Amino acid sequence: MDYPNDQAPGAPVRSGIPEHGRIPKYYAVKAHVSALLDELGEGEPLPTERELAVRFEVARETVRQALRELLLEGRLRRQGRATVVAGPKLEQPLSLASYTEGVRRQGRRPGRTLIGLDRFPCPPALADEIAVERGEPVWHMERVLLADDERVGLESTYVAVARMPRLDVDFDPDSSFYSYVHERLGIDFGSADERIETVLATPREALLIGTPPALPMLLIHRVSYDTGGRPTERVRTLYRGDRFSFTTRLGN
Amino acid sequence: MDYPNDQAPGAPVRSGIPEHGRIPKYYAVKAHVSALLDELGEGEPLPTERELAVRFEVARETVRQALRELLLEGRLRRQGRATVVAGPKLEQPLSLASYTEGVRRQGRRPGRTLIGLDRFPCPPALADEIAVERGEPVWHMERVLLADDERVGLESTYVAVARMPRLDVDFDPDSSFYSYVHERLGIDFGSADERIETVLATPREALLIGTPPALPMLLIHRVSYDTGGRPTERVRTLYRGDRFSFTTRLGN
Repeated sequence: MDYPNDQAPGAPVRSGIPEHGRIPKYYAVKAHVSALLDELGEGEPLPTERELAVRFEVARETVRQALRELLLEGRLRRQGRATVVAGPKLEQPLSLASYTEGVRRQGRRPGRTLIGLDRFPCPPALADEIAVERGEPVWHMERVLLADDERVGLESTYVAVARMPRLDVDFDPDSSFYSYVHERLGIDFGSADERIETVLATPREALLIGTPPALPMLLIHRVSYDTGGRPTERVRTLYRGDRFSFTTRLGN
Repeated sequence: MDYPNDQAPGAPVRSGIPEHGRIPKYYAVKAHVSALLDELGEGEPLPTERELAVRFEVARETVRQALRELLLEGRLRRQGRATVVAGPKLEQPLSLASYTEGVRRQGRRPGRTLIGLDRFPCPPALADEIAVERGEPVWHMERVLLADDERVGLESTYVAVARMPRLDVDFDPDSSFYSYVHERLGIDFGSADERIETVLATPREALLIGTPPALPMLLIHRVSYDTGGRPTERVRTLYRGDRFSFTTRLGN
């Protein structure tokens, strides 16, 4: 009843065994620790590096390399000074629904912290994307995204000032932007173009989100159109790669 | 006409400038080299590490750190012993269409190399996903994905042997699997559930795809259903994070 080479679908295929048959030592430790995490369960503290080094009969540096990868992949997380078993990644649907709604659906409490809201004259590339005249004022709003008070992402929204002139006055930056544009401005989104890629956080981004600088992130570029087909916002959202995955249902 | 802090939308927001105002030295070099790459253009060789160290008045190790990140992000690529300016990432649509079709649409030549095709008794988790009785034989086909002869991904497909008993005999593993199931078996896919995340390549995967082991990858899990709604295949595809991005159009 076993998979070939002990591999379940969804798990790395024949993980870690190069064709030449030598398994890197740190990777063997990683596989052992990974099995240990399954036994321990979410939130449980990991044994110390020293204990793991003794248990697996390897150098502490080898243990450290294994743990570093497990942290980057979101199997482990830091809790104060301790390292504990992380829960599964959030599964956020790719949809027109807001971040707020997606996080709520997973039983988490969404939140946002405003980093900055400023206005500047629209440069050419952005003008083409959101159909604003060059030089017309646009808002740039930057917010850290939270789930259960944990910082999980960083969002930059660009919109024409003409479409929402009082954004700086009557929008509560800790609330849902989509609710605001719907309820206060009567704008609904009808469609959006998205592009997803993986990038490394810049030092500033890592600092704002509170991640190690080398952490792989998921970056989503979005242009949203209102129900009349008019481009309305340009958004750049960076999500922690160790905490998020995205789901979609494809049809014909 | 400039963006705040010189930042275009889509570029890292105020990239690299932590709130406390100190820019890490390697990151300043990375920004300079990044601007240089724009001037040079795709395929052009990069000056040597030594030349860059002299030009930016930093240690070679600092240059090396900047280049390492630019390589991981796909701004640079190795060409034999040289390092050259990479082209833009492929933009693959998230759709029911096959890998073959997606790559062709971008003017690239798709290819595949068979790593292995074997059959094994269906384990419980997979049985639930593709609606096969536990213990019934399933195929596992593993192929390296190519674009213009460059290795860009690794795909594992799981299907019930009962649905395609002659897969090992009459399927050319260097051809499109979707064309095969359509033309030879009369099966069409009507929908699919996908989940995207970022992971680190295992040593074996890195070896098969020819990437550095620490390279962030995009991993897509897929279950496809035929037009009758019957689950038909379980696929796990790993794409080079430095070469791929995925696009989608969202609607209501």
